[in-house]
Amino acid sequence: LNEFDLIRRYFTPPTRHTVLAGGDDAALIAVRPEMEVAVSTDALVSGQHFFAEAEPRAIGYKSLAVNLSDLAAMGAIPRWATLSLTLPDADPVWLERFSEGFLSIAQDHDVDLIGGDTTRGALTVCVTIIGEVEAGRALRRSGARPGDELWVSGTIGDAALAVAHLRGDLVLQPAERAGAMQRLDYPQPRVKLGRGLLELATSCIDISDGLVADVGHLGECSGVHISIELDALPRSALALRYCDHPIGRRAVLAGGDDYELAFTAPAAHRSSLEALAGRGVALTCVGRVEPGSGVSVVDRSGVPMILAETGFDHFR
Amino acid sequence: LNEFDLIRRYFTPPTRHTVLAGGDDAALIAVRPEMEVAVSTDALVSGQHFFAEAEPRAIGYKSLAVNLSDLAAMGAIPRWATLSLTLPDADPVWLERFSEGFLSIAQDHDVDLIGGDTTRGALTVCVTIIGEVEAGRALRRSGARPGDELWVSGTIGDAALAVAHLRGDLVLQPAERAGAMQRLDYPQPRVKLGRGLLELATSCIDISDGLVADVGHLGECSGVHISIELDALPRSALALRYCDHPIGRRAVLAGGDDYELAFTAPAAHRSSLEALAGRGVALTCVGRVEPGSGVSVVDRSGVPMILAETGFDHFR
Repeated sequence: LNEFDLIRRYFTPPTRHTVLAGGDDAALIAVRPEMEVAVSTDALVSGQHFFAEAEPRAIGYKSLAVNLSDLAAMGAIPRWATLSLTLPDADPVWLERFSEGFLSIAQDHDVDLIGGDTTRGALTVCVTIIGEVEAGRALRRSGARPGDELWVSGTIGDAALAVAHLRGDLVLQPAERAGAMQRLDYPQPRVKLGRGLLELATSCIDISDGLVADVGHLGECSGVHISIELDALPRSALALRYCDHPIGRRAVLAGGDDYELAFTAPAAHRSSLEALAGRGVALTCVGRVEPGSGVSVVDRSGVPMILAETGFDHFR
Repeated sequence: LNEFDLIRRYFTPPTRHTVLAGGDDAALIAVRPEMEVAVSTDALVSGQHFFAEAEPRAIGYKSLAVNLSDLAAMGAIPRWATLSLTLPDADPVWLERFSEGFLSIAQDHDVDLIGGDTTRGALTVCVTIIGEVEAGRALRRSGARPGDELWVSGTIGDAALAVAHLRGDLVLQPAERAGAMQRLDYPQPRVKLGRGLLELATSCIDISDGLVADVGHLGECSGVHISIELDALPRSALALRYCDHPIGRRAVLAGGDDYELAFTAPAAHRSSLEALAGRGVALTCVGRVEPGSGVSVVDRSGVPMILAETGFDHFR
């Protein structure tokens, strides 16, 4: 298989809303009037974002999922993606599974794969996602105001517990491991939720670096202090079992791989948010926005915790 | 330096035509009415697209230049870029030079750097370029028609001679090496030419895989045969010196790093093209489009050459 055959065989599904995709020097897309274009890019690197022996289907799925999650956090509709794939060799079995994973989530979200390239080298998957959002209406990190409440979608901590298991830091039982691995390998980008938040949230971010770090970004961009109530954090049965274990506590505060949304909203929107949760993913109020700066986490006795490890940083 | 400091320090120049850049989950851009959006992505991988010891300024420059070249081949105006950088370590001297190279060509072409990410790993530079082109007017690979002429911009072969020198396949003298290295490290994307060709060319491609391979793409996409006249190919004084040497011949036919444009146009546009060349880069008529398929190269005696090596393919 040469480079062109490889792209033709695995990465040229039909497109549904693209003027010209693949096979030319650039793809052409038409953006609807009154829409701004949202663009995000994220590379997944073997040994950093996934284990080298990870299931290729999961790598393909997740490489698009994490980018979709970025658009979800903006309240944008994902529409198009490019894929730049660096591979040690052109293994047809690996490629078949990788492309299945990538294309299945692309189809679920009606995203057209419009271009990309392949190169020989260390396994790196670089995806750029492009979407649309009503002009002037995107959710940003900078709109949180004192008096707002902090919310988190779904449950958090499971993906980090899966990582801890894979690293040998703790041992999960087969049934709990399966659930945690599913959260790690197949995160559900909260695109529909992001759309629903357009009218309701004042700021929004996806939890990719860890809850405290990402809420810290909201606080920094908005110029406010955000207080998180530890016991309010939504956890699965598994994460609850580990809630007093240092690894479990770190998973929920600093584990970033769940790709849930953290957002702020005025207290007046509480019932609208509860109605939104009733139609989709659970939403939990987990803290509040105050004047000041920084993030604090308050434990069950009301005492602020000392935050040693607040997130993940590739170069720290 | 952590990941966020690194991005802040080296990769957040002011933007000039962007709604929201960097520092949020996605960037936001506004596309002008009546314009389609052109998108292309290309990764540069150490050891494949550049030598590991290459000057970081050149790597930064070239990673954007090759993407600009793709938009040039569509006749599009480059406007925005994302940069995903995978690095073995955060070396401030390397990063300073890399960002100088990247941002200098971005500024030359009025391109806003709107987002990206950094990860630790093998050196890989993945750029996505986004531009605008009048709806329905982009240059494609598929419009060549029998009777059209084939043209090439500038001169070709020098960059491949620089690669041959670096590989030790031939020895260039210091003065000729400097010129060839400049072509290899700092290719000039033909953006202005691409814009000028919108009314004149029937198909267009940038020469990145090698002349014969890339002209082959034009022929295949257009369903025509294209004949190239070897002696007509525009060469620098250096490439002319090597024109009968096997390496020199391969450089001009299969060397792809010059990033010139190859395009077809009706013979009736010859004088318009000559006028266009008078205002910018040289344009040379090097062949013609005929019914059929495939590419042929005819030498000075009119005999079709046997093409053993027609281009570069990462997985062949």
